Amino acid sequence: MPDEYVLAGDVGGTNLRIAAVAPAGIILHQVNALTPKTGVAADVVDGIVRAAELCISSMENPGRPAGFGLALAALVDSADGRIQSSPNLPELNALPLAETISNNLKLSVVLENDATAAAIGEHWLGSSQGARNSVFATLGTGVGGGLILNGKPYRGIDGTAGEIGHICVEPKGLLCGCGSRGCVEQYASATAVVRIARELLESDPGSSLSGNSNLTSKAIYEAAVGGDLVALDTFRIMGRYLGIAFADLVDVLNPELIVVGGGAAGAWDFFIDHVRAEIRGRAFKHPADRVQLVRAKLGDTAGILGAARVAFGHI
Amino acid sequence: MPDEYVLAGDVGGTNLRIAAVAPAGIILHQVNALTPKTGVAADVVDGIVRAAELCISSMENPGRPAGFGLALAALVDSADGRIQSSPNLPELNALPLAETISNNLKLSVVLENDATAAAIGEHWLGSSQGARNSVFATLGTGVGGGLILNGKPYRGIDGTAGEIGHICVEPKGLLCGCGSRGCVEQYASATAVVRIARELLESDPGSSLSGNSNLTSKAIYEAAVGGDLVALDTFRIMGRYLGIAFADLVDVLNPELIVVGGGAAGAWDFFIDHVRAEIRGRAFKHPADRVQLVRAKLGDTAGILGAARVAFGHI
Repeated sequence: MPDEYVLAGDVGGTNLRIAAVAPAGIILHQVNALTPKTGVAADVVDGIVRAAELCISSMENPGRPAGFGLALAALVDSADGRIQSSPNLPELNALPLAETISNNLKLSVVLENDATAAAIGEHWLGSSQGARNSVFATLGTGVGGGLILNGKPYRGIDGTAGEIGHICVEPKGLLCGCGSRGCVEQYASATAVVRIARELLESDPGSSLSGNSNLTSKAIYEAAVGGDLVALDTFRIMGRYLGIAFADLVDVLNPELIVVGGGAAGAWDFFIDHVRAEIRGRAFKHPADRVQLVRAKLGDTAGILGAARVAFGHI
Repeated sequence: MPDEYVLAGDVGGTNLRIAAVAPAGIILHQVNALTPKTGVAADVVDGIVRAAELCISSMENPGRPAGFGLALAALVDSADGRIQSSPNLPELNALPLAETISNNLKLSVVLENDATAAAIGEHWLGSSQGARNSVFATLGTGVGGGLILNGKPYRGIDGTAGEIGHICVEPKGLLCGCGSRGCVEQYASATAVVRIARELLESDPGSSLSGNSNLTSKAIYEAAVGGDLVALDTFRIMGRYLGIAFADLVDVLNPELIVVGGGAAGAWDFFIDHVRAEIRGRAFKHPADRVQLVRAKLGDTAGILGAARVAFGHI
């Protein structure tokens, strides 16, 4: 039986994962489920509570967990445990989620934004260990971010900081889900990669990607590996835009590291030189020379490990 | 005779000011001089040392100052007291300035970037007192910035953080002195205000500003007061661009306050609604509703007071 462990969870619009995590960051057991899609907050809460109970009961001789850290794709007020705004699960808006789950499980519950949790996880056990100031960027369906400043998670005054995916890189650019235009998310997410490739294919029908009606960022990556010019150009465009946003962050935050994770980070070899070129061309020399761009190490588990770290810190 | 005081200085490309400052932030005496323009580092050092000695000797019964804080328009490494890069006084590049002045004056000397010093000054005695997370923006010849995060000056890993004037607001926009294109400095500084007005005047010769060969941001402000449409449009354009950069900062840093100072901040009434509109249109609702835009209170003395604060903290 583990001496001490916490529950840690990552709740997205589609998947819900709850793990039991030991103090050294070892995942003792993990339950993967689908996030209930009824649109009713109580069902989401129930899904989280049942996955948590299943996780505990599946362990051999479990003790009670010492706390529960929960990462969500939402703006969360980690101080009062309330969801401020949850675009993917709007039924959770304004819900005092930490208190509700705590009452169910009789555990101390602390919430964290999922990208901030991933930044904490990478800082604890991944690519940014020991870095005093680092930016974590995740390139998935959207572009998320988390900040570690002066060695600690930086959340801003209400816990909403780190939304680097909404740095403007084209003031009259594409409409973003956030309501703004030209956010880097529209140019450097996995979703954006597909859109950019589609647009390039219209004027370049000779590409190996032409006629692929089910285009994915993975297929574009594979075409790039094969030397397809449309695929290579897609990642060039994506990298340049990501570099504009990163150059802003380099000038404003002077970080040691920018850690890049998420599905689209898999195409690293095809975009990172363009990101670097844009940072060098735009940011001040000293911080541009200083910043290192590195790949995230922890993959999907960064958020859970970060949530666990927060739960341990909260105990 | 004051019980205790520090020297505090603000060294720009043109002016050099050294003051004796008491612990409560009261300026006991101030010496204003011109920054030596010989291009020789030793002359600048000599100018600073002589102004400091004059400041001390001009006071009635001065004791020795307890330290010396020096703000400069340069990237400084405050930890080792070295100038990293000084665009306005390139002769200071790589100079161990703190040590050099310290050897001359037999005082502990600490360097600070001037915009960060102004942010510290405003946080100590000005508009951002008590704010946990705030951005200071100064709209002068360029656009400078300083950050107070988690209640403390945030300098980044090498002391270069806070360069908000180089946030990109037009990726293919005007060439900036920093080497990038489309920095907000090119659209929202006092210099930019004059350029924007000049461009608008070309197609609108009926303005009260037409034929003014010595156009200044102050003249444009006065024309705006008189209802001149070119002047009003100038501040609308300036405000929209400033708003794009501030929206980035609101999403990334979730600050309580953005404090705006510098000469061009005088036209506040003519640009601030456009800044607000852009923030509301672009940033996430919660942090956009939360952030307050306020005018700096300390004017020119913010940098000196901030440098004094750093000197007191360093003792």
